[in-house]
Amino acid sequence: MVKENEVPASLEWRVNMPSGSSRILAPESRQTCRFFSRFQSLVMGIVLNIKDFFEKAWTLAVNEPKKVIHCLKVGLALSIVSVFYYMRPLYDGVGGNAMWAVMTVIVVFEYTVGSTLYKCVNRAIGTCLAGSLGIGVHWVASQAGDKFEPVILQASVFLLAAAATFSRFIPTIKARFDYGAMIFILTFSLVSVSGYRVDKLVELAHERFSTIAIGASICILITTILCPVWAGTELHHLISSNLEKLAHSLEGYAAENFRLDSSNHSNEKDSSKRLQGYKCVLNSKAAEESMANFARWEPAHGKFNFRHPWKQYLKVGASMRSCAYCIETLHGGINSNTETPEFLKKPLNDICMRLGTSSSKVLKELSSMIKMMKNSTKLDILVDEMNSSVEGLQNALKTFPSYQHIPTPDPATDEPPNGTQEPCLKPTALSLLEIVHMATLTSLLVEIASRIEGIVEEVKELATQAEFRDESSKKSKQTQTKLNGNDGNGHEVTMTTVQKV
Amino acid sequence: MVKENEVPASLEWRVNMPSGSSRILAPESRQTCRFFSRFQSLVMGIVLNIKDFFEKAWTLAVNEPKKVIHCLKVGLALSIVSVFYYMRPLYDGVGGNAMWAVMTVIVVFEYTVGSTLYKCVNRAIGTCLAGSLGIGVHWVASQAGDKFEPVILQASVFLLAAAATFSRFIPTIKARFDYGAMIFILTFSLVSVSGYRVDKLVELAHERFSTIAIGASICILITTILCPVWAGTELHHLISSNLEKLAHSLEGYAAENFRLDSSNHSNEKDSSKRLQGYKCVLNSKAAEESMANFARWEPAHGKFNFRHPWKQYLKVGASMRSCAYCIETLHGGINSNTETPEFLKKPLNDICMRLGTSSSKVLKELSSMIKMMKNSTKLDILVDEMNSSVEGLQNALKTFPSYQHIPTPDPATDEPPNGTQEPCLKPTALSLLEIVHMATLTSLLVEIASRIEGIVEEVKELATQAEFRDESSKKSKQTQTKLNGNDGNGHEVTMTTVQKV
Repeated sequence: MVKENEVPASLEWRVNMPSGSSRILAPESRQTCRFFSRFQSLVMGIVLNIKDFFEKAWTLAVNEPKKVIHCLKVGLALSIVSVFYYMRPLYDGVGGNAMWAVMTVIVVFEYTVGSTLYKCVNRAIGTCLAGSLGIGVHWVASQAGDKFEPVILQASVFLLAAAATFSRFIPTIKARFDYGAMIFILTFSLVSVSGYRVDKLVELAHERFSTIAIGASICILITTILCPVWAGTELHHLISSNLEKLAHSLEGYAAENFRLDSSNHSNEKDSSKRLQGYKCVLNSKAAEESMANFARWEPAHGKFNFRHPWKQYLKVGASMRSCAYCIETLHGGINSNTETPEFLKKPLNDICMRLGTSSSKVLKELSSMIKMMKNSTKLDILVDEMNSSVEGLQNALKTFPSYQHIPTPDPATDEPPNGTQEPCLKPTALSLLEIVHMATLTSLLVEIASRIEGIVEEVKELATQAEFRDESSKKSKQTQTKLNGNDGNGHEVTMTTVQKV
Repeated sequence: MVKENEVPASLEWRVNMPSGSSRILAPESRQTCRFFSRFQSLVMGIVLNIKDFFEKAWTLAVNEPKKVIHCLKVGLALSIVSVFYYMRPLYDGVGGNAMWAVMTVIVVFEYTVGSTLYKCVNRAIGTCLAGSLGIGVHWVASQAGDKFEPVILQASVFLLAAAATFSRFIPTIKARFDYGAMIFILTFSLVSVSGYRVDKLVELAHERFSTIAIGASICILITTILCPVWAGTELHHLISSNLEKLAHSLEGYAAENFRLDSSNHSNEKDSSKRLQGYKCVLNSKAAEESMANFARWEPAHGKFNFRHPWKQYLKVGASMRSCAYCIETLHGGINSNTETPEFLKKPLNDICMRLGTSSSKVLKELSSMIKMMKNSTKLDILVDEMNSSVEGLQNALKTFPSYQHIPTPDPATDEPPNGTQEPCLKPTALSLLEIVHMATLTSLLVEIASRIEGIVEEVKELATQAEFRDESSKKSKQTQTKLNGNDGNGHEVTMTTVQKV
């Protein structure tokens, strides 16, 4: 059967089998040749893949040197812990307890301080709890006699492992003690299975706990002292930079769609990247949540107190995402085929441009407010500006009738209408379809502005909870000192009314 | 200083200190009383919290019995592995190798088959690779003399740990071999730190590997045989049910906003829950990705082959999310204060209702298509219907001028215009603002329809890649067999032209 619709590149003998498959009869030399060429392309493919992989790794390393530093920190921690055990006189090989210190370092050392602390604390709590419970169960079992001992031990392992595994499905436990629950199961099982006497167990537990403590403290020291990466700081920067990205997306959209002279498009690639910034916001939910989770474990650092309101950042993030959905819709596809008529476009474009710019200004101000942790005096002015732009847009829509005032010649006489007669208002065949595009744009912009107000509320709440500094705090402090200068400096007993809580 | 703006609930003596703090002087008996009431409320709070916790856990258990079964499976696996070691004659306590089997079970046993397999394979590869490399380095170090041995070992631990840690940041490695990299570091460090001779090490490695293999195979057996939870099946159901949720959201929105008689609101609470379905789609990205990741490790099961196109599900998910963004905008807040005038609303409502219903029908068909893994003959018809609804809407908008045709009385004479004169078309003071709401709704609906077409494309691609059955496959097969009946059944040598790749 000659397949005529295929391009004849070469002639071959093919054997068609009854099973439907076919075998090609090719000369020996060609087969060898093909084998070599295939082998060559395979090797080349692998080499290219490896090259590609290393290029990616290099880019990652250059872009995020913090991660490279983290790797060196892990190496350092491991070296220290192994040196520590090399030098100990009572060192007794992997079978002994050195292993637990090494294992602790590897399992516990995470990228951020918060996650390292989370794992350390969980490991400690889990080990202690399971260890003491295990020893207790062991004692009970040993009292019950040889017959019941294995039954009690087995039943306790089964029940506690099942219960602890189930607890890992409960969201509150999962968020804070997932690792601890696993360590609990591990330790309890090991203690139960061990078969040691209780007194031997206590001794063993003590040794093991001390080695774990050594490993954990090396981790904590290295992670907090050498270029620490704080989950809280990362979250703080993420939220602030996401706000800025949102501002850029909005600004870029406005510039691209509402600016009438599109002459100063400075850098096409750069601007399209900035336009896509909202996508980062759409996809950062999981990162925000895990960072906020770990940040709670961190001590005070930099500008942040121990009880910094990390949860509030999640609320800011959620309100930002809600705004990003709208921006996505705006960017995504409200590209009607019908052009908006020019007489409508020109004046509305100006107003839309103003709204887009003022909205993005509010976002930028929020971003810098979070970045500096300072209350902004400009914020309320910018929000007012945004709101007045919204009002301006709505007023424009109100006064803009969807027809055009053109004095038309009278059809009967074909003469222009005289001044005494009221001119007949003729619509210029303006259908709803021609308005739809502009109308959607405007109402999405208004919606985005209202969602930005939602972000403003959340950021203000954050500013209150985190006690952001006032911009004019220095000034006001100075005046306050002066005023308080006259106050008494002895004990002063006064009658005060206190409101019960 | 009497604070007059507080409500005077009771009188108290307060000492104001110069530091600014103040202390309340309260009678002894009241302090004790307050202490007790506080203690009581604290205890009550704890009790309530615990009760709340158990109620939550109970709800979780009732709603997802699969998770309870998983917990029992973990308990069972642990019991089996410990019994196995109890009974072994060469059992030598936790210090020996029993520990590694127990540890493997606890660390490796995950909720889905895919993630368990992922961890098992990673653990095996990581252990083997690091073990052989470790023994190699150990041998080299031992040849280098006593002076250089610790230096070489330390340097190799530092470098390899840092490199493996860095590899965990590279997305492709992270997705597939994150756990393996950790196990690699662990094993290599343990081997290097051990200080054993090479021959002892080989023996140790052999023992350890066999215990790990026992633990892992117990896990794999239990997880695949007893009520297996396949990551692939879960992903399949998630995508299909998310499509349905999206359909319900859209349908519910249409019913709530475009139905003129809102009489048959059967169940308020139920309908509002269905309306919120799109939120699940917005938040399921992380879950989809991890499931697709684990599904790749699973063997053929149920309706799924080994190389089922799990990646394509992610594409379907992404297109669904893009549609959900639009629906969120639709639901979220396009609630203008201005009412659309009735004469415009009535006819457009009908068309919008039709578009909403036909769009949600497409989504439902896609959902059932995925659920049954069957090609749908109805799909194209439904998509055509949706597209014709879009066209209908656009035509309606085109023909709908944004003014109303009302023959008005002549203002000069106050008489109705006579028939011979052309009636003057007077706009009924319809500003753009009044149209904006309706216009936005319609264009969002059109946008949603176009994004649904995107989902249709991705699902069709999935159907091709996963070779969905045809609904009429049985019939066509029968006819094919008849046609092929006359074919020859011997070898048949033909000349064929083969196109080079």
